Amino acid sequence: MNATRIGIAQINPRIGDLERNFLLAYEYVRQALRAKVDLLIFPELSVIGYPPKDLLNNPDFVEAAVKCNAKWAELTSDNNLAILFGSIASIDVVGKNLINAAFLVENGRIISRQAKSLLPTYDVFDEDRYFSPADHRLCMLWRGIRLGVSICEDCWNDRTFWKKREYTLDPLEELHRSGVDVFVNISASPYALGKPEVRRKMLAHACSRFNTPMIYVNQVGGNDDVIYDGGSMVFDRFGQLNVEAPQFTEHFLCFDIKDDLTIVSGGIESPRCVPDKVEESAEISAALTLGLRDYASKCGFKTAVLGLSGGIDSAVTAVLAAQALGKKNVWGISMPSRYSSTGSRDDARLSADALGINFMTVPIEPMFNAYLEQLSSAFAGKKEDVTEENLQARIRGAILMAFSNKFGHLLLSTGNKSEVAMGYCTLYGDTNGGLAVISDLYKTKVYALAKWLNKTWDRAVIPEASITKPPSAELRPNQTDQDSLPPYAMLDEILRLYIEESKDFREIVGVTTFKPELIEKVLKTIFRNEYKRKQLPPGLRITKKAFGSGRVMPLAQGWQ
Amino acid sequence: MNATRIGIAQINPRIGDLERNFLLAYEYVRQALRAKVDLLIFPELSVIGYPPKDLLNNPDFVEAAVKCNAKWAELTSDNNLAILFGSIASIDVVGKNLINAAFLVENGRIISRQAKSLLPTYDVFDEDRYFSPADHRLCMLWRGIRLGVSICEDCWNDRTFWKKREYTLDPLEELHRSGVDVFVNISASPYALGKPEVRRKMLAHACSRFNTPMIYVNQVGGNDDVIYDGGSMVFDRFGQLNVEAPQFTEHFLCFDIKDDLTIVSGGIESPRCVPDKVEESAEISAALTLGLRDYASKCGFKTAVLGLSGGIDSAVTAVLAAQALGKKNVWGISMPSRYSSTGSRDDARLSADALGINFMTVPIEPMFNAYLEQLSSAFAGKKEDVTEENLQARIRGAILMAFSNKFGHLLLSTGNKSEVAMGYCTLYGDTNGGLAVISDLYKTKVYALAKWLNKTWDRAVIPEASITKPPSAELRPNQTDQDSLPPYAMLDEILRLYIEESKDFREIVGVTTFKPELIEKVLKTIFRNEYKRKQLPPGLRITKKAFGSGRVMPLAQGWQ
Repeated sequence: MNATRIGIAQINPRIGDLERNFLLAYEYVRQALRAKVDLLIFPELSVIGYPPKDLLNNPDFVEAAVKCNAKWAELTSDNNLAILFGSIASIDVVGKNLINAAFLVENGRIISRQAKSLLPTYDVFDEDRYFSPADHRLCMLWRGIRLGVSICEDCWNDRTFWKKREYTLDPLEELHRSGVDVFVNISASPYALGKPEVRRKMLAHACSRFNTPMIYVNQVGGNDDVIYDGGSMVFDRFGQLNVEAPQFTEHFLCFDIKDDLTIVSGGIESPRCVPDKVEESAEISAALTLGLRDYASKCGFKTAVLGLSGGIDSAVTAVLAAQALGKKNVWGISMPSRYSSTGSRDDARLSADALGINFMTVPIEPMFNAYLEQLSSAFAGKKEDVTEENLQARIRGAILMAFSNKFGHLLLSTGNKSEVAMGYCTLYGDTNGGLAVISDLYKTKVYALAKWLNKTWDRAVIPEASITKPPSAELRPNQTDQDSLPPYAMLDEILRLYIEESKDFREIVGVTTFKPELIEKVLKTIFRNEYKRKQLPPGLRITKKAFGSGRVMPLAQGWQ
Repeated sequence: MNATRIGIAQINPRIGDLERNFLLAYEYVRQALRAKVDLLIFPELSVIGYPPKDLLNNPDFVEAAVKCNAKWAELTSDNNLAILFGSIASIDVVGKNLINAAFLVENGRIISRQAKSLLPTYDVFDEDRYFSPADHRLCMLWRGIRLGVSICEDCWNDRTFWKKREYTLDPLEELHRSGVDVFVNISASPYALGKPEVRRKMLAHACSRFNTPMIYVNQVGGNDDVIYDGGSMVFDRFGQLNVEAPQFTEHFLCFDIKDDLTIVSGGIESPRCVPDKVEESAEISAALTLGLRDYASKCGFKTAVLGLSGGIDSAVTAVLAAQALGKKNVWGISMPSRYSSTGSRDDARLSADALGINFMTVPIEPMFNAYLEQLSSAFAGKKEDVTEENLQARIRGAILMAFSNKFGHLLLSTGNKSEVAMGYCTLYGDTNGGLAVISDLYKTKVYALAKWLNKTWDRAVIPEASITKPPSAELRPNQTDQDSLPPYAMLDEILRLYIEESKDFREIVGVTTFKPELIEKVLKTIFRNEYKRKQLPPGLRITKKAFGSGRVMPLAQGWQ
């Protein structure tokens, strides 16, 4: 029997960088040609990167992107390769005159095009802001195979899989009715904890439902706050996973589809029928490392700086930074004050040494004293309060920005999701930074990640004491986090139910054993601190609901 | 002939504050009853305030809002009044199960409902994120009058008025075909320079096009960055403006519609056939004063603090703050350094004195010296650069936040749109604040506003020298803005064409006489500073395109 060889180009495009993305495509085309691939498939919007956001409102950008589609088509002009890739096109309609589409190119020409039907507009997605949906869904007939091409969200509305549907239309069902041989879905599907497994199950279900194989090609890479995990997959018509690309890394693979539509491994990659079960902390580490590396490199940073307090959050962030950028490219700054314990000072140095990053100490006492002195007459008769605590955090923030300014380091902020939720942080202080690395990780998960990192690094890159001592901001004598916050195990569960599961007060009371007053206090505190989150740097998203671009709350408001 | 008396309740709701908004409705109902009004009309989403944003993702909020609709209906239970108001309703459909609707209530019951058809999803609008559009458009028959009710955007897609249409559907045309007697549009239409005039012309055009009178009821007030100007209007069937409510203030008015559908003044308010032409600076002053007052009051602040540099931006912001909150509630802090000229120190005090606000001086030298000393070994061998300039700005930012923390003042940031566009500002320094008051005002417009304010206040609340001296950040010796930036007249024109008119590089070259290299440099600088704007406080929007929630750009990207 004959076979068609399909290649998957799981690429990491840079948003708006048409030239770089084209060169990336060129490299994958060369690999595909070497592997005698017939059809090479790229992710959603590969030409421009996803999400392009308001770049799409720039007429010159749109024009250049559309021109670039023709350039990608030319990659097939003197060979026998066909390419399927995602990009935008202008259409002549009333209203939004762009589509998010898949282009099939061969012999240097665009031979078929399918627009996206379901435009996600919720959480981090805002495609209705830019695009018109497809006005039809038809298979692309290519060398005798009917390819049923859909784009990302198009395959996420299966009424036989989900309890709740987001759209009336089910594009896969329509493609099925039009006589599809093989489903192809090109995606830019963001990573979230637990999502890869859901995705696998959902796609397997679609295949068995329609008795049709599926090729799923996902973007990889970090783009600002959102991380795309790749993990492209091929399923046979029974929903059996035949081939799977690794997560969190660019990857090329190929396989063969026989005329009877069975999938066989081919080319370079062997099939992995059952993906290895990955530990949660391992997945988180890989995701955050990729997100950090990409934010830095796509913004043009080679080095990073962060404050090392001796606490667990900054130690974990330092490890992730070393993983992403190389230990020689990371600077940890210890900035002790009168309230810093000897233990913390030691732990800061210990973690830097264990990790092998650069380390410096800049005590903040002289600045702190100068502020207190200069403000003493204005604040005469006033008690010490959070003002003085915040001043210390802001001195540290200014020192770190001075290092960033002087040496061109990217400043990493180190707050976790529990803190960010409760506003247990100082705006223009410890929140300073170009990127918040662990701001979508609850404190309890930071502990788990710390232990996993120490195991993986095979030494205490996070000092034992940073893990075992009671967490403290050390901004006043004998302070601990639990002076202000409920125990983290409790707090994190309330936060998760509220933020990720969209449960309201009564529902959280119903499903937990926590006191209603505690739950109410936590929820009110979340609301009251919205203004701080408004001014935070982008924070890497690893859950289905992060603070950031996917959660847009009014600041001046009266609902609690 | 008989007449129907209509009341307009141009209210300023607080987002999410169901109780407060209901009490506001209650007051307007009492006024309406005293004025013997038959039908009282409130703006779009009056029950919950516009825009509610992701509060709509909270199930308990939605439930409470829907319950509140019934409470509003009860306001008509023991009188002869009918009310038309905007709120949300849950509907039983696949997908987004909320509508943004107008409710007609009478005798304590909801008697009719019309959902919004056109859901704006661009700039500051994101209604596709939450709502399903109306599935029908029909007149509401009320006491023999066919009311053609539409909601905000529904009347902004007239193919006979606009060159470009955003939607296929024209709701007014459909209502016309269903036999409308009187159009009613309830709106939450944001203010922008020049927009009130466009709105008047567009509505007048619709009336004459369909030979139908129109009652237009707009929300007033500031909600975070967006300002709603009110300016509710009534047009007769020839498009003649008969009644107009004032801008930027809550207002109740009423008028009569006779059986032949002519409009006559009635009740309390007399008609204004030709609205006074308002000076641009007067409109800007009123808009920003309202926006500042509302942000403060809706967030629970009574007092504000800002840095007074002696420059024009902070002086103008101080005047706006005094107008919004009262001079006794504003604190101006002068924070001179080694680079502050005597003139600037004097001007800071002069403006505070002329205005009558509180004034304090906190020199920053001791902190600046402490930082330089503490960083000297880390920075050994490195030249002075922007690092040291930023440190001064960050010391000032920390001092201002200390005043904010200690006394509960709202910190106002004072950067203008030209600076914000070019990143000519220090993140965590002069950008610190809960609200950026003039961040949508180009420097050239700041000058015009300053002159107008001095004229209106009848004294130099902005010192003459602050207006006439060359603008400077005073962060190094003999610095002026024009060391780093093109002349403001030039810069502002390029910025306006790019930001507000969406012109690209070639178009700007085409319509101006500026050198292409200059234009290119300006555009690249805008792009390069996106990361700073990501972390700015909300900035009051007064143009059709502000930096902020209406302009969402990727940070790590390669397009220039």
